[in-house]
Amino acid sequence: MGDSGDSFGSPHRLEWAPDSGRLALSGYLERSKDRILAILTRWLSIPSISADPAHGTDLAASAEFFAGLLSEAGLNNVEILPTGDQESPGGPAVYGEHLGAGPGAPTVLIYGHHDVQPADPLEQWSSPPFEPTVTDGELRARGASDDKGQVLMQLEAVRGILAENGSLPVNVKLLVEGEEEVGSPHLESLLASSSGRFSTDVVIVSDTTMLGVDLPSTTVSMRGLVAFDVLLRTAEADLHSGIWGGTVPNAALLAARLAASLHDGEGRVVLPGFYDHVRELTPEDAEALARVPFDEQRYRAAAGVSYLEGEAGRSPLERTGARPTAEVVGIHAGYGGPGMKTIVPATANLKLALRLVPDQLPDEVEAALRAWLRQLVPAGAEVSVTRYGGVAPLITPLSHPAMQALSRALERVWGKEAIFTREGGSGPEEALSRVLGAPVIALGVALPTDNFHAPNERLVLSQLWRGILAAGELLAEVGSMRDDEASA
Amino acid sequence: MGDSGDSFGSPHRLEWAPDSGRLALSGYLERSKDRILAILTRWLSIPSISADPAHGTDLAASAEFFAGLLSEAGLNNVEILPTGDQESPGGPAVYGEHLGAGPGAPTVLIYGHHDVQPADPLEQWSSPPFEPTVTDGELRARGASDDKGQVLMQLEAVRGILAENGSLPVNVKLLVEGEEEVGSPHLESLLASSSGRFSTDVVIVSDTTMLGVDLPSTTVSMRGLVAFDVLLRTAEADLHSGIWGGTVPNAALLAARLAASLHDGEGRVVLPGFYDHVRELTPEDAEALARVPFDEQRYRAAAGVSYLEGEAGRSPLERTGARPTAEVVGIHAGYGGPGMKTIVPATANLKLALRLVPDQLPDEVEAALRAWLRQLVPAGAEVSVTRYGGVAPLITPLSHPAMQALSRALERVWGKEAIFTREGGSGPEEALSRVLGAPVIALGVALPTDNFHAPNERLVLSQLWRGILAAGELLAEVGSMRDDEASA
Repeated sequence: MGDSGDSFGSPHRLEWAPDSGRLALSGYLERSKDRILAILTRWLSIPSISADPAHGTDLAASAEFFAGLLSEAGLNNVEILPTGDQESPGGPAVYGEHLGAGPGAPTVLIYGHHDVQPADPLEQWSSPPFEPTVTDGELRARGASDDKGQVLMQLEAVRGILAENGSLPVNVKLLVEGEEEVGSPHLESLLASSSGRFSTDVVIVSDTTMLGVDLPSTTVSMRGLVAFDVLLRTAEADLHSGIWGGTVPNAALLAARLAASLHDGEGRVVLPGFYDHVRELTPEDAEALARVPFDEQRYRAAAGVSYLEGEAGRSPLERTGARPTAEVVGIHAGYGGPGMKTIVPATANLKLALRLVPDQLPDEVEAALRAWLRQLVPAGAEVSVTRYGGVAPLITPLSHPAMQALSRALERVWGKEAIFTREGGSGPEEALSRVLGAPVIALGVALPTDNFHAPNERLVLSQLWRGILAAGELLAEVGSMRDDEASA
Repeated sequence: MGDSGDSFGSPHRLEWAPDSGRLALSGYLERSKDRILAILTRWLSIPSISADPAHGTDLAASAEFFAGLLSEAGLNNVEILPTGDQESPGGPAVYGEHLGAGPGAPTVLIYGHHDVQPADPLEQWSSPPFEPTVTDGELRARGASDDKGQVLMQLEAVRGILAENGSLPVNVKLLVEGEEEVGSPHLESLLASSSGRFSTDVVIVSDTTMLGVDLPSTTVSMRGLVAFDVLLRTAEADLHSGIWGGTVPNAALLAARLAASLHDGEGRVVLPGFYDHVRELTPEDAEALARVPFDEQRYRAAAGVSYLEGEAGRSPLERTGARPTAEVVGIHAGYGGPGMKTIVPATANLKLALRLVPDQLPDEVEAALRAWLRQLVPAGAEVSVTRYGGVAPLITPLSHPAMQALSRALERVWGKEAIFTREGGSGPEEALSRVLGAPVIALGVALPTDNFHAPNERLVLSQLWRGILAAGELLAEVGSMRDDEASA
């Protein structure tokens, strides 16, 4: 950990932004870096992979370890919360709180997760995924940025303020789950299980990214999602194309026609009423989005595509962040093996995933899809639709006091105005917002190049240090929100 | 074989049609039925399955057995013709000839096959597939109608005429291959290998069906076929639909759009110039087709469909027999497993099979398809096309002397005018016609209900007996063709 002294070496050398906030965490941070890195290294050494049942004891050990950190930091009512049941145990969550600011002060719930993605393919890692390694100011390990490093960032801000000031500007609740990487199957029931315990004015999430080391940013919205599996049948069995080709319906063709009919010539989704509840960008929203850096050539290279498509008259960032989409996730019908068969396929499967923006609702979109299918599928064909999931879109407007607080915290630490992005998808944020009835803001310092879910996941240490300062500033900013703002 | 006396019992009781032909095979047939059934039973007991290499010795045994029958019937130069090479041996063909009619008389080449389809699913057979069983005037066994029974029908006509008359009205060449059920991979090279040996004025094929026991029919045309495997790529890898959905191209959608664009609103294929060389039906052709019985409700039930589609303004029989088609044989892209994934697919596979009618040619259609793809696929997408096969359409017009001869032979035995159908697909007939430069006519007595390629394949014995008489009449009719007619 002697490397921590080099943590601002190239390629991430940055000047400190003016530490002009009401909190003076810089001193605390300088004294604590070695300890923080040592703690993080120990935590990252526990392979808490939620997708693999063989790692159940590692998940438990990770929860125990983090619970210890919460107590050590001065949080109260620290508890490991089991999920699932005996037959199908889930990954344990960890909870702790510090309510010393009292009922007159705002409350924040900080959300994160201590489970990690599987590490394969192992051979592509330049150092073992569960042997954290610091090189060139980066900490490389599975979970470094997603999400243990960023959870510790939040905790260290709380600990630092308590250490320096003896009290917190807000009531803090910290909930760190153990199942985020497998879709948070028990989060919603956990949140709903204990009325009051998790109640909050603001939710702060931290498993997100910002645009770059010198591009402080956060997201104001995340698209929702609803998906459908459409099964079509046009005949009892596949038919010989020589004998029947020309008269009988072809399920593959029907599926293709449906998929091809999903958009009009302008790239707009044709489901009836699909855009009725789509909120258009305000002039301020449009201005904020225009400030997000975008280079089409780099964007195409990152996607591995040589051309872009989509809704006419909308910029790429608007299309992925502020406009709904309908994607053909899969289409499968007829023969797909080597060579050829001369059949007319009897069945087809079409999988569609629709990304939603405020104020579209999954149920309304499902009704629109079913109405559209009734219009297009011939009466003699069988069609069945299975819906998967349903996540409403999430937005915390620029003007929201919590978003303004976050904006100020970022600006104070990075020394420049924050950029507001719009995310194309969402994780558990929507459930947090909906069940707790609170706005969600995202203080994420990981970078798009940090290899989330991939080999050589890393955390840039300068981002960690700035993130601790920003997390502290954010608590101070929220603490200075008036009551009516906090619940706006 | 004592059952043969019941062979005209219900449900296939028929009055004999007047045996008014120039040949009097009725007496021969009555004396020979038991022997024919005994021979056929022995031959059908040999499981000559060409698709399964484990049955190589059975294919050889089947060829040996049939070669013995040819010699016994009085044919000369009987020979078993191996196919393929030592590394990849094919099923052996059997050849025999009787050229006693002399160079002034027409020559016919009778084509058939002695290999059979696999018999599974075995549990659906009401008696074992290779233990031929006669019940209610039907002989049930794999290969009973496709094609051993119909090959023996032809041979018995030759044998009967030789037995009764001592000579044949035409020169006869009999070629029975052993690979028809696996696509006749060596037939063309076999035909081309021995110039002169197989030269003929007319080819008679017999692995076909007629419409019903009291509906004597034959086919005047068979559609050609050319198929394509289209691979599309729009990105280096599948992309996350949350992050990228809205801007990046979707290969599944591209494939669907191509498939959906293949036909216009009238059900016509849009490939450029696709109909340029399509021969329209003559008034006589249309009249002949109108005589083919067609009951849409029964047709739909046989196909297992509840509605029909296809080219506007054309009858179902015209659409399957006299019009070209483009079928989507398969479309596969993106996720197809259980549940859902939120991806934008990077690749897609589209398989198309086009049925051709005179005078379309596979090469021209391939050029049209490639031109069409160049128009529709965006420049940034990768597309590769693999062509499979290429069978030209085949037609022997109603007015052709050989077709007229067949028509008279059928009418003489069945006592009613023959019906002329148009087949939607073809087997090896096109190669026979093209390589030998001779018209193909089809004398098939199997019924659409004979379960070709399915469990409980059968041959209706009344059809076998009438077929032997008709095969004899056909040789006599061809024998009476003038020289200039035979090669018309």
